[in-house]
Amino acid sequence: MLRLQLPRRLYSTAIPKKTVAQFLTVGPAESISNARITGWVRSTRKSKTEQFVDVSDGTSLRPLQAVVPRAMGTDIRVGASVRLYGDWVPCATQDMQTHELKVSSLEVIGPSDPKTYPIQKKYQSSEYLRSIPHLRSRIPLNAALLRLRSDAIAAVTRFFNEQNFVQTQPPIITSSDCEGAGEVFTAATGSAADQSKPKNKPADHFFRSPKYLTVSSQLHLEALAHSVGDVWTLSPTFRAEHSDTSRHMSEFYMLEAEQMFVDDMATVMSLLENLLRATVSEITTSTAAKDLRKAVSSLRHQEPELAADADVLQRWAGMGSEAPPWPRITYTEAVELLQKAQAEHGTQLFETPAPQWGEGLASEHEKWLAAHISEREAPGWRTPVFVTHYPQAIKAFYMMPTVATESQPGPASDSRTARQQQQDTVDCFDLLVTDVCEIAGGSMREYRLDNLLATMAERGMALPKDAHGGRSTAGLDWYVDLRRWGTAPHGGFGLGFDRVLSYLSGIPNVKDVVAFPRWYGRCDC
Amino acid sequence: MLRLQLPRRLYSTAIPKKTVAQFLTVGPAESISNARITGWVRSTRKSKTEQFVDVSDGTSLRPLQAVVPRAMGTDIRVGASVRLYGDWVPCATQDMQTHELKVSSLEVIGPSDPKTYPIQKKYQSSEYLRSIPHLRSRIPLNAALLRLRSDAIAAVTRFFNEQNFVQTQPPIITSSDCEGAGEVFTAATGSAADQSKPKNKPADHFFRSPKYLTVSSQLHLEALAHSVGDVWTLSPTFRAEHSDTSRHMSEFYMLEAEQMFVDDMATVMSLLENLLRATVSEITTSTAAKDLRKAVSSLRHQEPELAADADVLQRWAGMGSEAPPWPRITYTEAVELLQKAQAEHGTQLFETPAPQWGEGLASEHEKWLAAHISEREAPGWRTPVFVTHYPQAIKAFYMMPTVATESQPGPASDSRTARQQQQDTVDCFDLLVTDVCEIAGGSMREYRLDNLLATMAERGMALPKDAHGGRSTAGLDWYVDLRRWGTAPHGGFGLGFDRVLSYLSGIPNVKDVVAFPRWYGRCDC
Repeated sequence: MLRLQLPRRLYSTAIPKKTVAQFLTVGPAESISNARITGWVRSTRKSKTEQFVDVSDGTSLRPLQAVVPRAMGTDIRVGASVRLYGDWVPCATQDMQTHELKVSSLEVIGPSDPKTYPIQKKYQSSEYLRSIPHLRSRIPLNAALLRLRSDAIAAVTRFFNEQNFVQTQPPIITSSDCEGAGEVFTAATGSAADQSKPKNKPADHFFRSPKYLTVSSQLHLEALAHSVGDVWTLSPTFRAEHSDTSRHMSEFYMLEAEQMFVDDMATVMSLLENLLRATVSEITTSTAAKDLRKAVSSLRHQEPELAADADVLQRWAGMGSEAPPWPRITYTEAVELLQKAQAEHGTQLFETPAPQWGEGLASEHEKWLAAHISEREAPGWRTPVFVTHYPQAIKAFYMMPTVATESQPGPASDSRTARQQQQDTVDCFDLLVTDVCEIAGGSMREYRLDNLLATMAERGMALPKDAHGGRSTAGLDWYVDLRRWGTAPHGGFGLGFDRVLSYLSGIPNVKDVVAFPRWYGRCDC
Repeated sequence: MLRLQLPRRLYSTAIPKKTVAQFLTVGPAESISNARITGWVRSTRKSKTEQFVDVSDGTSLRPLQAVVPRAMGTDIRVGASVRLYGDWVPCATQDMQTHELKVSSLEVIGPSDPKTYPIQKKYQSSEYLRSIPHLRSRIPLNAALLRLRSDAIAAVTRFFNEQNFVQTQPPIITSSDCEGAGEVFTAATGSAADQSKPKNKPADHFFRSPKYLTVSSQLHLEALAHSVGDVWTLSPTFRAEHSDTSRHMSEFYMLEAEQMFVDDMATVMSLLENLLRATVSEITTSTAAKDLRKAVSSLRHQEPELAADADVLQRWAGMGSEAPPWPRITYTEAVELLQKAQAEHGTQLFETPAPQWGEGLASEHEKWLAAHISEREAPGWRTPVFVTHYPQAIKAFYMMPTVATESQPGPASDSRTARQQQQDTVDCFDLLVTDVCEIAGGSMREYRLDNLLATMAERGMALPKDAHGGRSTAGLDWYVDLRRWGTAPHGGFGLGFDRVLSYLSGIPNVKDVVAFPRWYGRCDC
């Protein structure tokens, strides 16, 4: 019988460990004898007889202070992982901390040479830190960001669960590159040599034809909404854009929701507003948010582009449940306001001239609108602002054209001129905030088969229905099918999860709120 | 001023809608006047004066019965989406349902032609249904699967939140293809024409060198664990395997967790066991699970490979919180048992001969072990079974070699022969269940810098430390860095989320529990 080397025991005898965060909440008069603490050394200083060691395990911004008798002869250095044993007792003077660990024995598990350790106590630029993402999260600020993200995921999960939305996992590899031709990643296989051969036959492709990394889960969510009703997902999405701005990455998390049997876009906007209010109110009272706020504050004199503390608090309040209803204005009004502001303040107001009706909004316009409209409609509150009903021509094919309601009649269709038709809008909205600009976008979806095919035909995505039975030429037959049997009104939105965290934390570059950011030319680790 | 067409109102006046599931839980004596119901027609039958219409909105397996006077002259057909108004009143005879909707008016929103509708009332094979994933989830069974998955995500999120684990979003596009050379997808960009040009220069690649879709988030989770301690993620992972088995897909969801400052693998195994017990106990009492069980039962005479109902209940019980502790045996014992069984029952017992020590276990061996060991250790319960301490040679480079404990001394290292050394094991485990085989795998990680580099050097993944400073040659320098400063013991696991859902639902092919499955040659929609 082969049993030359006996394994370790198969059942655990480990005592549950206490985190630094848990030690720090022990009552001021309480003590814990024979405490055991594991963590990493954040800083040390020495007196004649003792070494004071700040230990962190990532669970709190504030480290735990350990007092090590120098007689132990151990040299404890920044970055090392340690296991400390001793008594957790109230301090004599409680000005900085209530307790300290009187160390009776210790073990340096993983040493660290501060001379070579890439994370230094002194200030290091965010650009440098982006080059070492595998170590960057050891910095208290970045650890707090990780915890805030975790709190945010838990909060949105709870919100949708309470609203009876079904959380789904739509596919990442998809058949269509519908939204931005050329700006998608392809899921390829085979060696570099294989990849340099032309791929013309189905057998040349793993999936028999080229497949792409999803740019949005929306189309698949629509399919699932036609089965179980209201659905949502928090999924990675991909764009192969060559731009390098503070708001874009090649890989980012989108929170997308789709509401079934909804006629009124205002319902979808309210869902988004309620989601964000509930989430922000919950997570900004968490330890992670408080820790993050402190960490950002302490860095502000080196990085002036970080939002001021008062600004951060305003962002939290304006997005929270106490804020007044978020203003909702139309694109048409937005364009008028921008033109009027430019007329009043002169051409130096915007670098990009104010848009004409039919043109897109530049990010500086979005910023101006977010600040101006929230101040006008909810003075003193920095609320997000909805801008609705953009021109159809500059929006995606799947959006529902605006139908004038009875109480607000539009022009009779037969009397419309070509000029008027150009000004057709779709039932869509963007959610804008200061600094980060667009954080979410949504729309009602065109659910009428003939109308969808007509729009797709106009855009060269399908053959017209009457002539050829209405087939998509963009790999979207399946999407058209959703309208072929049992179609119904629905709408939804996509929320840039990383952008929201960037806005709430006051960290302007979205690459700094993601653990391992990917963008054009950069994919470290 | 341009305002030719007035938009719809910007604030909602919609009345919150009630789902079919909510209507079905109305008390037996209660009525609801002026009810409004939206959904899809599941089936219809006609009497002389009335049309009986079963309506579903995906929130429950059981449809809601509506009674439409034929005098209305509306022809309601299977697959159509409808909006029905009327009174929800107790039935005269309550044998099939307690209530029915007496329809006073109705609207067919989206018609459906049953002749062309690809989803038919009659039995359709799961293979056919896989070809229409965009419509498949409209089938009650598949809708219940979506809801069960949602419940499962909510349950694991709550579990880890209560255990103070940080939920993370590790990257999907990664630098290393460490685990299965050639079996990874590459994230490529550019047109088909671009892709046929050789890529030799950094500028030929979007990220300046080839990047891959992650096969596991483990390595990145390890980095994050060295910052905030215990971490987890539920993320998509990718394998470009050419195999087409009932247990493999090219894209699948893995739940991965990493525990920091853990010395004992039994702690990690218990975390996995506790996670599954808590989750399974919670979700198997949900409506989704009950609905799914009924839906599977009704299909079983057409698809005999579906697990029997008694079997499904046994799976739920064996994985739930009432079950005895899950058996834990070593690989060495597993091999002995397999060899003994083969000796007793003859060579016809297994298609693949029982393994010799050092060989991997075939899936039929795993199935036999799962059944045999759970029956031996926990008779009457179908518990999962842990198999631990596999040979190092057949396991991944990052796994921690087994160190004999004091109470169970191994051979002194200087007296070990080459034969004995071959039988070195690593601290790792697989979790096996009947039918689906391996649902999870985990290990302690090699956290000692020199040992990790030595193993990587042996496998051609790195230069030995003494000779060249210990650099990885596999794009894993960053992973090695985690051991360079402040390393500490840690371990974790990866759980095949789709496989667990397949096992719990009794649906043997994992492609049938995923909304849009992808596998070799197939990526529909």
